[in-house]
Amino acid sequence: MSSTDKCQKIMELARRRGFFWQSYEIYGGESGFIDYGPLGALLKRKIEQKWIDEFVRKEGLMLIDTPIITPSIVFEASGHTTYFTDPVTTCKKCGRKWRADHLLEEKTGESFEGLTLEELYKKMLENNVRCPECGGELESPKFFNELFKTTIGPYSENVGYGRPETAQGIFSNFKRLYELARGKLPFGVAQAGRCVRNEISPRQGPIRLRELTIMEIEFFFDPENPKCEKIFEVKNEKLRLLPEKLLLDGVTEPIEVTVEEALKNGYIKSEWNAYFMVKAKKFVEMLGIPSEKQFFKEKLPNERAHYSTQTYDQLVELSRWGTVELSGHAWRSNYDLKMHMVYSGEDLRVFVPYNKPQKVRRLLVEPNKKALTKDFGEEALRVSRLLTLTQPEFIRKSLDENGFYELKGDGKTYRITFEHVNLKEVEVEEKGKRIIPNVAEPSFGLDRLFYATLEYAYSEKDGRVVLKLPRELAPIEVAVFPLMTKDGLPEKAKKVYCMLLDHGFMVEYDESGSIGRRYARMDEVGTPIAVTIDHQTLQDNTVTLRDRDTWEQIRVKVEKLPLTLEKYFREKVDFKDLAKLC
Amino acid sequence: MSSTDKCQKIMELARRRGFFWQSYEIYGGESGFIDYGPLGALLKRKIEQKWIDEFVRKEGLMLIDTPIITPSIVFEASGHTTYFTDPVTTCKKCGRKWRADHLLEEKTGESFEGLTLEELYKKMLENNVRCPECGGELESPKFFNELFKTTIGPYSENVGYGRPETAQGIFSNFKRLYELARGKLPFGVAQAGRCVRNEISPRQGPIRLRELTIMEIEFFFDPENPKCEKIFEVKNEKLRLLPEKLLLDGVTEPIEVTVEEALKNGYIKSEWNAYFMVKAKKFVEMLGIPSEKQFFKEKLPNERAHYSTQTYDQLVELSRWGTVELSGHAWRSNYDLKMHMVYSGEDLRVFVPYNKPQKVRRLLVEPNKKALTKDFGEEALRVSRLLTLTQPEFIRKSLDENGFYELKGDGKTYRITFEHVNLKEVEVEEKGKRIIPNVAEPSFGLDRLFYATLEYAYSEKDGRVVLKLPRELAPIEVAVFPLMTKDGLPEKAKKVYCMLLDHGFMVEYDESGSIGRRYARMDEVGTPIAVTIDHQTLQDNTVTLRDRDTWEQIRVKVEKLPLTLEKYFREKVDFKDLAKLC
Repeated sequence: MSSTDKCQKIMELARRRGFFWQSYEIYGGESGFIDYGPLGALLKRKIEQKWIDEFVRKEGLMLIDTPIITPSIVFEASGHTTYFTDPVTTCKKCGRKWRADHLLEEKTGESFEGLTLEELYKKMLENNVRCPECGGELESPKFFNELFKTTIGPYSENVGYGRPETAQGIFSNFKRLYELARGKLPFGVAQAGRCVRNEISPRQGPIRLRELTIMEIEFFFDPENPKCEKIFEVKNEKLRLLPEKLLLDGVTEPIEVTVEEALKNGYIKSEWNAYFMVKAKKFVEMLGIPSEKQFFKEKLPNERAHYSTQTYDQLVELSRWGTVELSGHAWRSNYDLKMHMVYSGEDLRVFVPYNKPQKVRRLLVEPNKKALTKDFGEEALRVSRLLTLTQPEFIRKSLDENGFYELKGDGKTYRITFEHVNLKEVEVEEKGKRIIPNVAEPSFGLDRLFYATLEYAYSEKDGRVVLKLPRELAPIEVAVFPLMTKDGLPEKAKKVYCMLLDHGFMVEYDESGSIGRRYARMDEVGTPIAVTIDHQTLQDNTVTLRDRDTWEQIRVKVEKLPLTLEKYFREKVDFKDLAKLC
Repeated sequence: MSSTDKCQKIMELARRRGFFWQSYEIYGGESGFIDYGPLGALLKRKIEQKWIDEFVRKEGLMLIDTPIITPSIVFEASGHTTYFTDPVTTCKKCGRKWRADHLLEEKTGESFEGLTLEELYKKMLENNVRCPECGGELESPKFFNELFKTTIGPYSENVGYGRPETAQGIFSNFKRLYELARGKLPFGVAQAGRCVRNEISPRQGPIRLRELTIMEIEFFFDPENPKCEKIFEVKNEKLRLLPEKLLLDGVTEPIEVTVEEALKNGYIKSEWNAYFMVKAKKFVEMLGIPSEKQFFKEKLPNERAHYSTQTYDQLVELSRWGTVELSGHAWRSNYDLKMHMVYSGEDLRVFVPYNKPQKVRRLLVEPNKKALTKDFGEEALRVSRLLTLTQPEFIRKSLDENGFYELKGDGKTYRITFEHVNLKEVEVEEKGKRIIPNVAEPSFGLDRLFYATLEYAYSEKDGRVVLKLPRELAPIEVAVFPLMTKDGLPEKAKKVYCMLLDHGFMVEYDESGSIGRRYARMDEVGTPIAVTIDHQTLQDNTVTLRDRDTWEQIRVKVEKLPLTLEKYFREKVDFKDLAKLC
């Protein structure tokens, strides 16, 4: 089976049995949007719930839930209004617009993240990249901002955007969350929710979506005390890594190292990131994707997001889409909190007390408001806040050496000269210091996890599809069938069906078609257990339990059915061991 | 305790302990948006999950999950681009904008839904309604469309909207869903998801939001066979009703009637709506809101949405916000499917076969494309589709009597004359007929359910707050406390904590402050059970279980703790009966 075939089969199954399909079909479809059908919506919810169980409940993180529509200032602070762009090119002939770097990648098979527009255009011309639709010549690329834009309320000047990530809902709430964490570092906050990204021309089915669900964690820690207290639990765990160091040496195959080695060799810079990378590996394993099919690849500096110090992508191989990122593990430094301080004027720093007060000499940078206002107008207040958040020594050194300091913040650079600041040294007694926490960010794409789960569960047996979903993810847990639609079998089967519903199982009743056909229908949607009511049931009150993967059957007393299924689903007892229990 | 006090206390608790707060606080807040904090996000998810369990799993409905961003044509078809409006008035002095009918209602205490703009302005002048902010004079109101507008992809002409309801995601998928229901009526489809409504000036905290979660069901049935096969299960259930008939007679207090009586007296017109109203009553009861605090009020014709034949609102009394709608129960007729047929050109009708083929004379209306194009231009195709979906007899009668027929569809009226159509009678043999299903729509507002749950759980005991949430909704299920932070009690307590985590419970560990203070902290967030580890634990391996509501305590062996808690949470055994089990 070729990999394209496999993907096509999965897509066909997904549409026919109701896992997912392209949205707005009756209106010709809209690229970048998918609908989850009845089985897909349940599977997606189960993956999300599993993630919450693993990362929130078991790790003791806080879960929050914030809006999608966000006032402009939040994304001005985070840099998204400036940086959340991709290069778009327009066909001179047919007027269609395309993502320039993707066309180049498709043509050459190489990756071209981080090029300037000029470099990109040059490469496009060199490689004779043309309009995929009509073959026309393409214009030089421009940056297109991929935030969905709207206005909030009846005032057209009140601009808002759809969030492209859930993270800013966490950062902008840091103050309150820190209080809820009782004023102590480290702590982590999770969010799972809908995000929107106005992709230029998404053409990869469920892999590149304009509307998607992101599940992410912002884990806040003290950069001067970055130890992960749980690292000992995972230090011997193995990770398959492709770190920057090796990538730059031309290595293309991931190496397998323990967490301890990865940290020692500097492959992973943050213990907290390392900890969550292990959790991510195990989580993806729980979805049925073996650890040897996964690896973590470090992003090179020009590929990283503007806020990131180090980023690893968790990758898996998918039949048609190649190596696909399921999660990203960024060390976001303190960028976001700092920028929200600058834009909101709120102090989001955390006070870390010393053991005893210390007398220290401090260099102070006092912004000169008048001079700042003269040169920076409306932005003076932000520049002023940014100045006070910068190491004074850096400013003095640059001023002394160059006569100016390049203050960088929110996608802009402000040229600070002696006029703008007063520098003075003072002696102060300090009881502690205020720090801006650093952030480890594991971020998962739920829709891709969903698709990868389907693909790794897909198998064929005797020419039929068996979807070997992990049992706790199966959308339908149990199917109940009367062997025939006569002799009171349907009535008995419906009683069994109702009993299992009362016990909390997701059950489907089906009496149409041959029993073989009904088993097959359930196999292809991943239902682990089928219960059949036959004539013997009417005599001894036993039913047949059939296993999806082995097609083995055992007989169980009806009154023991709920307990047997509990053992199977909640305690993960093997099917073949169930017989002993009954 | 006054009702305003109560609400203020709940809001304070919600902010302090992390249930919810206004979004974007550090940027001054944005009206109509709330953030769910760590406890709120868990409670909200549990209510949603309970809804899915009650309506999807137990009722055998299909759950789907479709995008928020929707191409313009979908809401043109549904009528939202035309009808989803509210009257806005602008202050002549300060320029602020307000929802005109709300200002009038606040001033007079009466409801003014369904007035024309002229009538509304007249009433505003009569009642001297002024700007609530500056007291200025107000302009005559205009309609403001409350869809959030954006563009999809890099083409500015590709307009999209944020969905204000999840229903259109179901209607526009009807064809595929009908196939998944194996081509049989009736069947129901549910969706729970984020929706956005660009409210003009929301000022009611969690009650009127610009971003909200709606949980709704579209239940499709044959209008010629509208019997609900499960009506017998609920016919003796009592509902508190305020039907249109009685409202028009001046009745203001709901009457209590059985479902059977409500249907017989024509108070409720659809059996399926009646069935779901009972389910809704019971669901809201499960959230802790007694049935005697709920009632269903019918919307008068001028208050109903444009698609509705009959609508009941499920109302409860909330301390500060008055009588608030938690769910709506609309009979949406076939409006939406019909309009999607007209706009998409897809046949969404369902074939209902006769027992045997019938020969019938039929009046046919053949649209005259040329004449339609001449008079209706681009809309000719839609007018033509709309004509073929209209009863031919109505068209002929009106043409004969008036010389024209007013064809109404998507917020517009088209004047059809003899030129536009050819009428002819033919004899045909029909094997069955094609019908457009009708729809019963129960639609719930999750955010309001959440707030109502909090308010009805709120109680005070000995001057302290006890949040009496139903046990299965509690965000934290079990708290684990060492009595003191010495003698190895914390170590033992952490073991108990980990054991309960392993058993799947949502557990919180706390060792700071006096034990009384820790109990109080858990009482006010509704944690049903607190487990305390004391010196006796070290001797006989028993712990104390304390009940949130009665403050009673029992001792339980550590090894029996998981089972005891299972009995309490999953089997709903009373706290006082737990002792017998242990």
